[in-house]
Amino acid sequence: MATLSIKFKYAFPLVKAGMVMKVREKGLTIKETESKESFEIMAWVHDLMPDKRTIVLRDPTGIKEFLVDPSVVKGLTRESLVKAKGYVHSGESVIKDIKVIIKAPPKLPIDVRNPPADDPERFSKYSYLVIRSPKYMKVLKIQQWILYGIRDFLISKGFIELLPPIISPCSDPGLRGAKKLRTKLYGKEYELMSSLIMFKQAAASALGKIFFVGRNVREEPPEHLSTGRHLCEFTQIDVELAFAKIDDAMRLCEDLLKYTIGFVWDKCRSELEELNPSLEIPRIPFKVLTYDEAFQILKEMGEKVVYGKEFPQDSETKLATSLGEPIWIIKYPIESRGFYYMPDQEDPGKNRDFNLILPKGYGEVIDGGEREYRYEKIVERIKLMGEDPDHYGWFLDLAKIGIAPSCGFGIGLERLTRYIAGLKYIWEAVPFPKVPGVAPTP
Amino acid sequence: MATLSIKFKYAFPLVKAGMVMKVREKGLTIKETESKESFEIMAWVHDLMPDKRTIVLRDPTGIKEFLVDPSVVKGLTRESLVKAKGYVHSGESVIKDIKVIIKAPPKLPIDVRNPPADDPERFSKYSYLVIRSPKYMKVLKIQQWILYGIRDFLISKGFIELLPPIISPCSDPGLRGAKKLRTKLYGKEYELMSSLIMFKQAAASALGKIFFVGRNVREEPPEHLSTGRHLCEFTQIDVELAFAKIDDAMRLCEDLLKYTIGFVWDKCRSELEELNPSLEIPRIPFKVLTYDEAFQILKEMGEKVVYGKEFPQDSETKLATSLGEPIWIIKYPIESRGFYYMPDQEDPGKNRDFNLILPKGYGEVIDGGEREYRYEKIVERIKLMGEDPDHYGWFLDLAKIGIAPSCGFGIGLERLTRYIAGLKYIWEAVPFPKVPGVAPTP
Repeated sequence: MATLSIKFKYAFPLVKAGMVMKVREKGLTIKETESKESFEIMAWVHDLMPDKRTIVLRDPTGIKEFLVDPSVVKGLTRESLVKAKGYVHSGESVIKDIKVIIKAPPKLPIDVRNPPADDPERFSKYSYLVIRSPKYMKVLKIQQWILYGIRDFLISKGFIELLPPIISPCSDPGLRGAKKLRTKLYGKEYELMSSLIMFKQAAASALGKIFFVGRNVREEPPEHLSTGRHLCEFTQIDVELAFAKIDDAMRLCEDLLKYTIGFVWDKCRSELEELNPSLEIPRIPFKVLTYDEAFQILKEMGEKVVYGKEFPQDSETKLATSLGEPIWIIKYPIESRGFYYMPDQEDPGKNRDFNLILPKGYGEVIDGGEREYRYEKIVERIKLMGEDPDHYGWFLDLAKIGIAPSCGFGIGLERLTRYIAGLKYIWEAVPFPKVPGVAPTP
Repeated sequence: MATLSIKFKYAFPLVKAGMVMKVREKGLTIKETESKESFEIMAWVHDLMPDKRTIVLRDPTGIKEFLVDPSVVKGLTRESLVKAKGYVHSGESVIKDIKVIIKAPPKLPIDVRNPPADDPERFSKYSYLVIRSPKYMKVLKIQQWILYGIRDFLISKGFIELLPPIISPCSDPGLRGAKKLRTKLYGKEYELMSSLIMFKQAAASALGKIFFVGRNVREEPPEHLSTGRHLCEFTQIDVELAFAKIDDAMRLCEDLLKYTIGFVWDKCRSELEELNPSLEIPRIPFKVLTYDEAFQILKEMGEKVVYGKEFPQDSETKLATSLGEPIWIIKYPIESRGFYYMPDQEDPGKNRDFNLILPKGYGEVIDGGEREYRYEKIVERIKLMGEDPDHYGWFLDLAKIGIAPSCGFGIGLERLTRYIAGLKYIWEAVPFPKVPGVAPTP
């Protein structure tokens, strides 16, 4: 039997015959009926042209225009679910009958054809409609393949992926002004994970090379909304390597990014050609600047930088953008970062750490470093930060027994998705965004 | 250059040459030195034989015995990290010098050689040591490949994997006696996700065929500890198909389980041969019983079952075990389940739902069904359960616009891991378990 020529544009790449096709026959795609020229589809009304002679239908594979008689679409509303029957005539697809399965109200809270990315409050509140738009369907497909590529790369290098904890009595203390969320389990205080740093050190001590795809939650200062680079719920690809050094980890990151971007080009060529055609597979290794070198350049650029503090994120972003390529910044001053970095013996006052800053305004996407693993030093650093060591109970118990020296990093998955898909805002890079200062959202 | 014959037993399957080998040379594996018969390794002291003439060292690839002179191991403690130098002589590996990098205390809270799975409180409290034991390193490797196999299968069928939300103003109301955890974001009440059901319906309405690897949190009644089948933090492979029916979803589950178990046999043959050699690739389709049929059989078996309520989990587990094969139970009474199932038009009072019950005492591993998607009916069902519709704000807003009819299911990943790895308790099937009634744990 011949297949009809009516196809939605963005076909899923791996749909195979068999049982799933059986499922699809029941709805999503075109079903052959007796005549090879007729068809029947289940789809959402994406758009109705003002002349009522053209209708755009949408299913998970994309959108498609059909000719229609105005009488058939009378009273029809966008985002209604319909069963449509039609035929193909001289290459034109014509719909002759529409049955409404679910009628959407005439007024919708956002325009699915063009979701309001410039209005993060409405964009996040109605995220369940945003994900219906063809643009964000493509972004989510790209994100799936980014994650797939990262997993494939790491597992091929012998890493073990572990399930990420969601709550623990203690989470990362170094949050750049964000707050941790709290909850209770059996009356005991827990925190939602804001980073998996302590679990990474514990797991690398057991399994050597590990990663988590960690979902973290932080209450970001509301003013971070304007950066377009912060989410309250975000994903960190959290990688840790026992006995490794920063050079090993930085090379691993470079290879991983190069591999992943190439992989996504393979899997999502049409999507990238539409959303971000200028995306290049990066040339590695990336340029390296020390904190001190970056500080000098930023001062000369007129940026407001204070020695001994992390650079304002806008400033480091401007730096990478002005250089036009991804930049490693290494060896931050000890006092500027969390307690878990290892001081550099050869460069007193500095950590053995690194950040990767992307150009074109995308900013920081990876941070990492060698870890402090010595019990006394960890306690000393926690106190220096004005924190109570008792809060870090299980981690310090483990440190007393012994943690492997290790090096690791976290990749911000939504930031990487934003870069790869060429998105203006980070809330465009996740299916149900929670943006700074806005609650409640789904 | 020849490679030395000293290898740890459980080599990671995909370690490749190149950068990662460079990392490994620095520590975890044996380093060739000038003489081809000598070696140097970084490893943990797994065991010391009472005669002090044999030492067992451990690295992420497994454990290995070495001969040693008692003077070399004087004062050495288990779980210390050491750098050991030695040589191979007549097939025996001999260690001649040990340098302690981190000295573990003489008394450890658990025995890493044989973690106390029968004592869930200590097992979960010291999970960071449990994952060092060779047995649980194997379990975690199996779990990684289970997840990999599931992802591969679903993605090959055209499903899109989405990032799972962690918090939302509302989560699943139907929890079999467990409580939801609460938190606040910007002063607003949120719940930790206890299931992704509402997000699944929203996402399937947009993308058709979707899945989440959802990390859910519930405060289980402390008495659920004794079942060995409940965790407070657990992973659900949450799959949803727009326009599908229960038959489609049940066939998909069967194919998925068959594929995944075969895949794990391929990837983890030595681990499964050790942990669960009798694991079979299941014959599909599985046997199907209606709730009414299962009720009759359970009554005849003398089980305490009440018509109209879910079966006690012990009872349904006994049923599958007595039949010696996985069993589908379908068409539960409406009042026994959550509000989101679709009633069966042809069988009044019953849902179009299904549970998969595993034999050999493993019990329920999948539940699913067709979903109620009609706004008025959802509100009616919420009220019938004595709940306030206002609590389900965003979901009802979406239902008013329109949700696709869909069918879906959740696979308990830790339960499946327990079944595949042949584990006695579910807390053995996750790296950092949170067990009923026990807090705080990491």
